[in-house]
Amino acid sequence: MASTTPSPLAPAEIPALEPIDGIRLAATNCGIRYKGRTDLTAILLDPGTVMAGVFTKSKTPGAPVTWCRDILPLGAARAIVVNAGNANVFTGKAGRVAVEQTAAAAAAALGCSPQEIYLSSTGVIGEILPVDRIVSALPALIASARHDGWDEASRAIMTTDTFPKVATRIATIDGVKVRINGFCKGSGMIAPDMATMLAYIFTDASLPAPALQTLLSRGVDASFNSITVDGDTSTSDTVLFAATGTAKNTLITDPGDQRLGDFRRKLNDLLLDLAKQVVRDGEGAEKLVEIRVTGAASAKAARKIGMSVGNSPLVKTAIAASDANWGRIVMAVGKSGETVDRDTLSISVGGVLIAAQGGLVPGYDETPVAQHMAGREILIEIDIGVGRGKATVWTCDLTHRYVDINGSYRS
Amino acid sequence: MASTTPSPLAPAEIPALEPIDGIRLAATNCGIRYKGRTDLTAILLDPGTVMAGVFTKSKTPGAPVTWCRDILPLGAARAIVVNAGNANVFTGKAGRVAVEQTAAAAAAALGCSPQEIYLSSTGVIGEILPVDRIVSALPALIASARHDGWDEASRAIMTTDTFPKVATRIATIDGVKVRINGFCKGSGMIAPDMATMLAYIFTDASLPAPALQTLLSRGVDASFNSITVDGDTSTSDTVLFAATGTAKNTLITDPGDQRLGDFRRKLNDLLLDLAKQVVRDGEGAEKLVEIRVTGAASAKAARKIGMSVGNSPLVKTAIAASDANWGRIVMAVGKSGETVDRDTLSISVGGVLIAAQGGLVPGYDETPVAQHMAGREILIEIDIGVGRGKATVWTCDLTHRYVDINGSYRS
Repeated sequence: MASTTPSPLAPAEIPALEPIDGIRLAATNCGIRYKGRTDLTAILLDPGTVMAGVFTKSKTPGAPVTWCRDILPLGAARAIVVNAGNANVFTGKAGRVAVEQTAAAAAAALGCSPQEIYLSSTGVIGEILPVDRIVSALPALIASARHDGWDEASRAIMTTDTFPKVATRIATIDGVKVRINGFCKGSGMIAPDMATMLAYIFTDASLPAPALQTLLSRGVDASFNSITVDGDTSTSDTVLFAATGTAKNTLITDPGDQRLGDFRRKLNDLLLDLAKQVVRDGEGAEKLVEIRVTGAASAKAARKIGMSVGNSPLVKTAIAASDANWGRIVMAVGKSGETVDRDTLSISVGGVLIAAQGGLVPGYDETPVAQHMAGREILIEIDIGVGRGKATVWTCDLTHRYVDINGSYRS
Repeated sequence: MASTTPSPLAPAEIPALEPIDGIRLAATNCGIRYKGRTDLTAILLDPGTVMAGVFTKSKTPGAPVTWCRDILPLGAARAIVVNAGNANVFTGKAGRVAVEQTAAAAAAALGCSPQEIYLSSTGVIGEILPVDRIVSALPALIASARHDGWDEASRAIMTTDTFPKVATRIATIDGVKVRINGFCKGSGMIAPDMATMLAYIFTDASLPAPALQTLLSRGVDASFNSITVDGDTSTSDTVLFAATGTAKNTLITDPGDQRLGDFRRKLNDLLLDLAKQVVRDGEGAEKLVEIRVTGAASAKAARKIGMSVGNSPLVKTAIAASDANWGRIVMAVGKSGETVDRDTLSISVGGVLIAAQGGLVPGYDETPVAQHMAGREILIEIDIGVGRGKATVWTCDLTHRYVDINGSYRS
């Protein structure tokens, strides 16, 4: 289902991911849904790897999400197995059996416990996963895993994505250089509370699981939880963060320790990089929109206002038409339900103040704003003027292609 | 801006509204925005008319909404003046002055207090209302009002509407026949908490203002507050309900009195009729979708689940493509945040049970569902299986025309 035409917002270059000691990857086509492309990937993790995870808040999560949540407290991770083309969601007992059989098959090939196998599935909801094809493919797939399999893995997890989304950073922990690699997929069903459907982050840093979990949870808040394509939350959203410990840095248990400062910054930067790539590949997206909200009653209020603007179909269709229809921004701010004072609200687009103190700025000239709106990257700044809360969210425009893609996904 | 091609969901016939004693109406073109069509209407109410009102919950309401809210407790109403083409929203002090000048001009022509003049404006946000054109037009407009001006008035308030939305009912109060007439406009920026932008209901029944208000507020909940086109809440949403008392029925003060039973039923029926007409004219709508939620934890939970489905772009684009993609319904139920049990959830489309007990129904045949999906009216039934709460909401599909209409509204 992956389109052959990359999004116009795709990055000019896809960075190559350098190997991380203790991690090997492989991908294959096991015939779940797609012809002529890979749909199954296995990421092998050496013994000693610890895992953190953040999952969808959906009340109807997929069977793999439930599985990962259950095994996460056990602490050990030996592999991540991901299939594309079928989400294994709302598949009842068959879905749970499919998860158990996949984990058992991977565990047998690796000589570990099934509870050390993390699983994700992405694709159509409600169809029975042809688990036998996965189980049959796993031994050869696992045997073929290589340290340099990053590119293949990042492509095998795609569904409607038009480009693979990868990012890499190098950080220093107490003088020791560590690497962070990440890749993710997602372009529709993207909303707050786990925006991307699937993201995998890896590091050779040595970190205890609780610290890894805290670093991930905090980082996801300002990245994957701050983007939206269509306000729809997936049943399968998963972010996993694996640390092999092979870099042998000083083990630091407090995630707030200042010796982890550089690692935190690089991790957050990588998470935001990946999250923005998801918006750049938003279904039908032609423009990347950054919405900066300041002066709200709280950071939470600011986020909610930003999301109200970022999810408004009227704002998003106006942006698609390069129309600086700031009246719709006012509408979307107003409907957020948060404390707003019409007479202190101000709105800028592309750095040009349009409205302030309850009305249009005297002498407002739409020309520079129209130029900005014609571009690929749109900046909307909203100052509520009632407090100090701030947040930034990212979204894309709502175009004909969104309607096309989602009207034909199953056909 | 009103399209010349009516929505494919438009009613086959527009009912003619019979006069109501004590009410006269007129419309004209005063040149606010549109060429070759009316854009200003005045509805004159004889002395003794009482008014009820329900307004948008937006935190950035238009100046006319603030005005109406302020005068509503005063109890008397002599006219409603509505302009189309400019919403007079986020227009600061100029907006408040425009409201005062309009009310003063109408009051002067009628010989009443400005606080007896109700006002609505609908159209573009953030542009200064050319109030002088309204003030100049009002004396002749008011002088031309007629008992049979209903059709003209219902057309003059339209913006992107493709057909006028009117409804009429006859009820009996304690043996006396009374009439209820209503008309409304709205096709985009439609969402819960005041779905239609503007609706006006009239009756010759004699009812005290508090009872009128209670009847309206309750009726709006199951009608205008149960529809959605795009999840966007307008800054101008207004429902006014005027009772002239000219039918001279027994004055009943308790809105729950059983002698008002027939009136309540007819009123609620009329409100739902109008609300569904708004969805039928949803921007770009090709299908009317009824979502019946049962078995939720509460009625409020059922409404929220219904709205989560009715507002999901993924569900709405699938419906536009006549695709019974029930997996997206599962997703939208899951993201509602309400109590849901995957294993008790069941979903029917067009009366055919598709999924139950956490999975697809054995032997499910998509053929009759595909036939239903190809039609104009789609029924989705969702049983949550956790309680007794129920609610029904109405929405429409999300089509290319929605993107077109909203990408070009200002141009």
